[in-house]
Amino acid sequence: MVPHLTTALTGPILDLEQRIIDAMPRIEHWFRTQWVEHAPPIYGSVDLRNAGFKLAPVDMNLFPGGFNNLNPDFHPLCVQATQAALEKACPDASNLLLIPENHTRNSFYLQNVAALRYILQQAGLNVRLGSLSEEITQPTSLALPDGKELLLEPLRREGNRVKLEGFDPCIVLLNNDLSAGIPGILDGIEQNLLPPLHAGWSTRKKTNHFSAYDQVAAEFAKLLDIDQWLINPYFERCDQINFQERLGEQCLAEKVDSLLTRIRAKYQEYGIQEQPYVIVKANSGTYGMGVMSVKDASEVIGLNRKQRNKMSVIKEGQEVHEVIVQEGVHTFESLQDAVAEPVVYMIDRYVVGGFYRVHTGRGPDENLNAPGMHFEPLAFETACSLPDCGAEPDYLPNRFYAYGVVARLALLAASLEIEQTTPQNN
Amino acid sequence: MVPHLTTALTGPILDLEQRIIDAMPRIEHWFRTQWVEHAPPIYGSVDLRNAGFKLAPVDMNLFPGGFNNLNPDFHPLCVQATQAALEKACPDASNLLLIPENHTRNSFYLQNVAALRYILQQAGLNVRLGSLSEEITQPTSLALPDGKELLLEPLRREGNRVKLEGFDPCIVLLNNDLSAGIPGILDGIEQNLLPPLHAGWSTRKKTNHFSAYDQVAAEFAKLLDIDQWLINPYFERCDQINFQERLGEQCLAEKVDSLLTRIRAKYQEYGIQEQPYVIVKANSGTYGMGVMSVKDASEVIGLNRKQRNKMSVIKEGQEVHEVIVQEGVHTFESLQDAVAEPVVYMIDRYVVGGFYRVHTGRGPDENLNAPGMHFEPLAFETACSLPDCGAEPDYLPNRFYAYGVVARLALLAASLEIEQTTPQNN
Repeated sequence: MVPHLTTALTGPILDLEQRIIDAMPRIEHWFRTQWVEHAPPIYGSVDLRNAGFKLAPVDMNLFPGGFNNLNPDFHPLCVQATQAALEKACPDASNLLLIPENHTRNSFYLQNVAALRYILQQAGLNVRLGSLSEEITQPTSLALPDGKELLLEPLRREGNRVKLEGFDPCIVLLNNDLSAGIPGILDGIEQNLLPPLHAGWSTRKKTNHFSAYDQVAAEFAKLLDIDQWLINPYFERCDQINFQERLGEQCLAEKVDSLLTRIRAKYQEYGIQEQPYVIVKANSGTYGMGVMSVKDASEVIGLNRKQRNKMSVIKEGQEVHEVIVQEGVHTFESLQDAVAEPVVYMIDRYVVGGFYRVHTGRGPDENLNAPGMHFEPLAFETACSLPDCGAEPDYLPNRFYAYGVVARLALLAASLEIEQTTPQNN
Repeated sequence: MVPHLTTALTGPILDLEQRIIDAMPRIEHWFRTQWVEHAPPIYGSVDLRNAGFKLAPVDMNLFPGGFNNLNPDFHPLCVQATQAALEKACPDASNLLLIPENHTRNSFYLQNVAALRYILQQAGLNVRLGSLSEEITQPTSLALPDGKELLLEPLRREGNRVKLEGFDPCIVLLNNDLSAGIPGILDGIEQNLLPPLHAGWSTRKKTNHFSAYDQVAAEFAKLLDIDQWLINPYFERCDQINFQERLGEQCLAEKVDSLLTRIRAKYQEYGIQEQPYVIVKANSGTYGMGVMSVKDASEVIGLNRKQRNKMSVIKEGQEVHEVIVQEGVHTFESLQDAVAEPVVYMIDRYVVGGFYRVHTGRGPDENLNAPGMHFEPLAFETACSLPDCGAEPDYLPNRFYAYGVVARLALLAASLEIEQTTPQNN
């Protein structure tokens, strides 16, 4: 059984959560009309922060890597959502090519691929794994901790199609975030490629996502008649950064300062005693690389070598030239003194589960998705779709419903973002 | 927790079930393409019989009445399926009018309505209950066993819309099978009425359903390269029956005889030792009224008064003028000597759960849905969507997957049936 997150979840449902629960039919209706206008991404995961006074997404991953951390009780939900997604994307599909990340030695990640493969197979697809890695020149079997294995096969291009030996897929599903750039072998293929190439981190920018989220949050806040700041972290952007050469420090300090000033004003408005902070992170990329937590503008001036190194390079050795400066959202949730950050998983428009990233030895104002930091995943115990308006205020499914709503706002923002960033010549 | 159905389910997965599991991706692909051509009914339940050598639907209910018997663990599946259905049927809907049966004193049925209302509400709808009963002339509160209540309100017609006081629904969901006829108040309404009026038992005929099932079963059998008899019970029809006046007995005896002859031939072909039997039941209607089990044609000649009374009237006092004579399928499943019949529930195209109708004091060749007979519902313990090809042959989810497949064949037949019986002037 999944353990209770006692410390994280015994608090009463907060005013904001209660408003979300009370407005449930209106919210679901609003989402339905939104999804008619905007196709959701095939899947996604959202990192949330619950500060008590504020519940907001801080990151949106379009290539989710933790399907193995979901409660297996939710697998039927994942399968059903996948079937619904397939029906729209490609009802005629029977072969799906799954392209994972290249880091084949990370057994946590491999378990994610196995879990994802399982879900896709249960939805009735023939699934095979194709690798972008140059090291995979022939079918290569990788052992999983449970004794099963994954067979990685080399991709090959034939005309406008990408294939494996004896396998011609109708759908190509990326679970590789393309941090290293768009691989030529996938460029211009005629198959249904999900998510699209421009959703990969070689072109995607967090500031585009959070600009789209501004639109979504504003509309949702109007629907609920709330201050959109309660669900939306402020952010700014700095271009032309070069941490090694100390270029852009001044811009960074200015943006940090203006953001802290705006946050301070909001904290004053709501009588919040916490200390404001901001997160500076690479505008593209994932895995918590290139991230720092800042409480004063002076901290970003004159970084030492270690800090500069940490900030200047992200996954796949890509250099950082742009950063997002994002309002830090304190985390209200903890488990036995460890900070707990909820991560919500979605397939198509459906919330299919989630887990807590539980991090010992980290403060409530730090980044929980840091490189090399091991976190304990704690699967959500209940689904996110069953609020009970009449229930006690600390009824667990009600908190999870609110989390599912805010996660879907970020998913909707991702839809807008993908639309708005579609290359012109496509 | 839901108890294990030990006796019912410890047997090994049978050859037919194994073939279904092995063909899973092909089956799911086939269903996807079928649903592109044929819209599934909004919901339905299917009574299955597993004879070991044969697994077949024996009844298909388009107004399912046992949502309260499903495992609550599956509620998220029900909610998600409802959301998918709404998205297609009426993404703009926020108000749903649910029209239940008129028998307001049956507390089992009221619990079904409450469970259904809960699912619809969790999918984000404002749900109110409108009654077709002449007794409901003002809002009437009915107490449920758990202390909650249902508020039944009188329907009213305004122009081409049906409404409640202060409530204008976009969707009208029938959970009333219209055995008493099509109510004028619903005729020609402009709202989305689901299922359509002609799916009600005042016009629906079981033989139309099983004719459509013949088409579906033939195509599916071809896909799996099996004898379609393994999933399809033979049937015949007799018109111009009047049990009270002993009209039509001869036709009945002939059909019973020819059916038994055909079944006997199949039993011989497959080396089956059981005694063949047929079920004679009203061609329209539900609740197991007007049903008899027959092992020889002579049994339908010269019925005594009690038998004639039993056969001649079904629900709402409707007289029986047509019957379906259907091959009886032995039930292989039992629980502590009680016969167990699986019932599978679907919303839109998705299997969302099921339960066993467990009937003490009934033989494996009798009707388990008889009037006045109380059955024990036993919710399925796992979902129907997670087969495991590599698992042990008695792995529970594999049996349930096969049940879900055959139930969906009946659902697809219902889609065809509804298409084929749509009134010409609509």
